[in-house]
Formats: sequence, C-alpha cells, structure tokens
Amino acid sequence: MSAAPAAEPDSDARSFDRWLREALARIEAFLAERLPGEQAEPVDLHRGMRYAVLDGGKRVRPLLAYAAGELVGAPTAVVDHAAAAVELIHAYSLVHDDLPCMDDDVLRRGKPTVHVAFGEATAMLVGDALQAQAFGLLADAARAGARPEAIVRMLAELACAAGSLGMAGGQAIDLASVGRRIDRDTLQRMHERKTGAMLKASVLMGADCGRPLSADERQALVVYADAVGLAFQIVDDILDVEADSGTLGKTAGKDAQHDKPTYVSLLGLDQSKELAQSLRRQAHSALAGFGVGAGRLGALADMIVLRKS
Amino acid sequence: MSAAPAAEPDSDARSFDRWLREALARIEAFLAERLPGEQAEPVDLHRGMRYAVLDGGKRVRPLLAYAAGELVGAPTAVVDHAAAAVELIHAYSLVHDDLPCMDDDVLRRGKPTVHVAFGEATAMLVGDALQAQAFGLLADAARAGARPEAIVRMLAELACAAGSLGMAGGQAIDLASVGRRIDRDTLQRMHERKTGAMLKASVLMGADCGRPLSADERQALVVYADAVGLAFQIVDDILDVEADSGTLGKTAGKDAQHDKPTYVSLLGLDQSKELAQSLRRQAHSALAGFGVGAGRLGALADMIVLRKS
Repeated sequence: MSAAPAAEPDSDARSFDRWLREALARIEAFLAERLPGEQAEPVDLHRGMRYAVLDGGKRVRPLLAYAAGELVGAPTAVVDHAAAAVELIHAYSLVHDDLPCMDDDVLRRGKPTVHVAFGEATAMLVGDALQAQAFGLLADAARAGARPEAIVRMLAELACAAGSLGMAGGQAIDLASVGRRIDRDTLQRMHERKTGAMLKASVLMGADCGRPLSADERQALVVYADAVGLAFQIVDDILDVEADSGTLGKTAGKDAQHDKPTYVSLLGLDQSKELAQSLRRQAHSALAGFGVGAGRLGALADMIVLRKS
Repeated sequence: MSAAPAAEPDSDARSFDRWLREALARIEAFLAERLPGEQAEPVDLHRGMRYAVLDGGKRVRPLLAYAAGELVGAPTAVVDHAAAAVELIHAYSLVHDDLPCMDDDVLRRGKPTVHVAFGEATAMLVGDALQAQAFGLLADAARAGARPEAIVRMLAELACAAGSLGMAGGQAIDLASVGRRIDRDTLQRMHERKTGAMLKASVLMGADCGRPLSADERQALVVYADAVGLAFQIVDDILDVEADSGTLGKTAGKDAQHDKPTYVSLLGLDQSKELAQSLRRQAHSALAGFGVGAGRLGALADMIVLRKS
C-alpha cells in the first residue's frame, strides 16, 4: 500500500496484483473491525449489517479511493475511512435496491439478499444504519490524523454523491424508466447519478486525504472518474447479458426480464463493447499528467473494463 | 432569535411565544429553500422529499438546536444547518417507519403518508435521500461560517445518533419487541435510542455552533437532553391513549392496536404522567448553572411535557 516506485514494465502486472490483494485484505479487515459486532444490541440489525457488507463484493469504490490517495501521498490510515465510507454507502444501496418494493431480488453476491435472510423491516434498517455509519466514519478519520478541512470536503462529496442529485436520484430515474423507451442521453444521465456519482466521489475522497490538488489535477481526476464510471455501467449491462448467475453472484438477465433500458438494448452488444474500450482509453489519457504515480488508477480502469463478473 | 435579555418574569411567556413563532418560521423557510425544488429532476423524488418535510411537524428538534445555540452565542445562520439536519433525519425516519414493512401507517401530520401518496419505492428513496441531505447540510454550514472542527463534531454526533447505536438501532429493538412483554429497563433503552439519541444530538449540535463548553456545561446539557428525551416519549405514549387522530395528525391508539409496549401499558396513565412531570423538573434543574440564558431550553422542556398533540 506504499507509494509505487517506478517499476519495470514487465513487473507492473505482478506489482498491481500484489497491491490489489493487499488493498482488498486491508479494506475487509477495516470494515470487519469498524462494523458493530454481532453481539452488540440490536443483534439482528448488526448481524444484517455485517452480512450485507462483509465477505463479498468487488470493492471497486474502496480500490479507487486507495489508488487516488496513493497518487497524492495520503496516509493510508486516513484513506481507510474514505474507502470504507463509500463501500458502506454502496452496500446500503444494494440492500435497499434488492427489496421487494424495488428490484425484488433474492440473490446477491451468491447469497440470499438481506431481506430474504433477515426480513424486510430489518433490511430497511440495515440500509439506513449503514448510511449513517458511512458518514460517521468520515468524522472518525480525525482520529487517524485527517485534517478537519479534508473531512468537511469528503463529507460534502459523499452527501452529494449519495443524495437526490446523485445515487438516490439515479435510482428514482431508474424506477421511472422501467418499461419505457428512453434515449441514450437519459440513460447516461441516469447512470451518471446511479453509479457514476459514487465512483467519482470514491476517487475525489481518496484524493482529499493527501496533498492539495491543483485545479487541473482535480479536473483530470474528474474526467478519469467520469469515464470509468460510465464504462463500469456499460460493462455491467454487457455482463448481465453474457455471464451466468453463478459467475455474477447475482441474478443474470434481470435487466431484460425487468424490461430495463440498458446500453446493450440501446446500442447492441458490439457497439457497447467498443464504447467501453473507448472510455478506458479516455480514462488513461486523463491520467497522463500525473506520470507513473497514476499507474494504480490506470490499472483499475483496465480491471473495471476487462472484468468477467 | 437574538440572545435573550434578562426579562421580567411576567413577560417570559410572551417573549418565548414570540421566539417560538420566529424560530418555526425560520426553520420552515430554511428547509423550503434548501430542499431541492419540485422542478428539479427526478421530480417525483423531490416532490416526495418536500412533502415529507414541509408544512407539518412540531419541529421539536430544530427548536432544541436553536435554543442550545443561543445559550452559547452561536450565529443563527450556522445553527440553521444543525437544526435542518436533525429535522431531515427525523423526517426520513418517519417516512421509513410508516412503510408497510414497518408500522404500515397511512396518516401522518394529517396527510396521507409518503408511500400512500408517492408509492413505496419512491418513499424508500425519499427517506434515503433525506438522510444524505441531512449530512450534506452539515458540510454546507462552512459557507455560513462554521469552523471545520465544529462541523466534524456535529457530524460525529449526528451519525452516532442516527445509526445502529442510536435511532435505527432503537427502531430495530422496537420491531423485536412488538407483541412481547418487555420490562421498563428495556423500554427505556429502546426509547433512549429511538427518540432520545436524536433529541440529545439536537441540543449538542446546536451547542457545537457556539463558544466551547466546559465539561460540566456539556454534562448539564446531556442530563437536560436525556430528561427531555424520555419525557417526550412518555408524553407520546400518553397522547396515543388520550388524544384523537384529528388532534394528533396521525393514527391514535396505534400502540395498543399493534400490541406495542408503552409507558402507559407498563406503568399506567397516572404514574406515567407523574414520571413526565418529574423529568421536566430534572430538565430544569440541569439548566440551573447556565442562569437566565437557558430560559429557552427550560421553556421547551415545559412545552414538550405540556403539549396536547
């Protein structure tokens, strides 16, 4: 998790794999430690929170936060809080999204969804409590040495990305679009909010933990995050068609089943794949000004576009 | 809304009434201005958020924040953010609490509940988005001149009071206790979390906006808030039995109907009323060290215990 030394090209992949494993182990341990224990009252709620968050998920958002933090020399112990906060927001959104009144899904990360395992009422409270804890983790970052100014900046970014002009708003647009013919602009606007906003917040909050960014550097990270965010969603749509439920760990083919507009339904499979590749190139170009230090973010863009689940 | 001058005893009530009207008008205007407009996309979500928050509610939490802020000379423009944040958390909790999978209630503040008016999925997102905006308002307090350190303190208090060890946890204990015989300690522990934690946060966050408190002063506010929080719940239980739905603006008698344990069912009506009065006296005693400046908080304790709806 230390800043990357200039690496030989042929060792890049190996070094990234090792970084990835370390980062995944780190966020898992941090989340397991910070979520209330299963013995703490109310037991059902805390068991549900841990069930929703631990032992599953690709942790894309924490990885983006760690990589962005490294780019600006942020102390990893501070970035932990940003990384965990964005993951808890993501986890809560999945719990609520799976509820019967939303997507009514029974399988997530290869396990029964939270409301199947714990009941609907507890699932709703699990989501509510995870959102509160996400914000609480930002306050806790002070104890790891985060400056109050950095915490306030992260707070503003997280609240905006999670709220009605971000993720929750994207889900409302999604709800309203089921069974309707929407155009590519509307689809993009929906995804910019539904997934893009939180992916962007992950990058920017990671960066908030380190040295101040110039306006140009910040803008470059925004361009990178926007490209990665959109590519992420397009690949999601492609995998929903091409992969099976076992590989995905969630119900495959559910977009078509729910008559949801997707990139694949709008552009077709080939053009969707081309668009994802083009966004990957855009993400790399945006990082050019940072030099070799941005290698992790570049490798994450590749990982997101080339993933199989 | 300025700090109270030492008042003639016979003008106290008049002066408090005026302060109350001003504070209620102020929080209403602030909330109306800060909630996204009904034209902003997604329209349904934003209409639902405004419907859930505006034109209703006793605004007890904002009033506690304003009164505590005044006590420590906090700029009212900063306290606005704390007051609005606690009210948005309260409003979101009501929206989720009314859902079919929770209390399944159709009437709130004399109007159809949010899920009746907007559908279940939108109601869930309304609650989710209100919680995010509550935290976002704390970040915005910086623009009104709040110090970053004060924002981080408010953030920690709000997250703790709203989360699994606070309000959401209290609701989970409530869920688990329906139809079961619980003792007074368990009932008190449930209410300390379900309503007490947020009422306490309202007082402390208001106080965070002003001069630093000594440890004794802070402890006095905690004792005050704990007494007021518990009294608030006991009076709620009494009103659920004694008032009618028209006066309450919500379904009366629903505790008994849902077989929920209450102070009235545990202690009887007379002893519950005595306990509420005793807590009111405790609240006043706790404020003694602050002198005349704590008059607003004292009057709010009276208002909470003597209310009829």
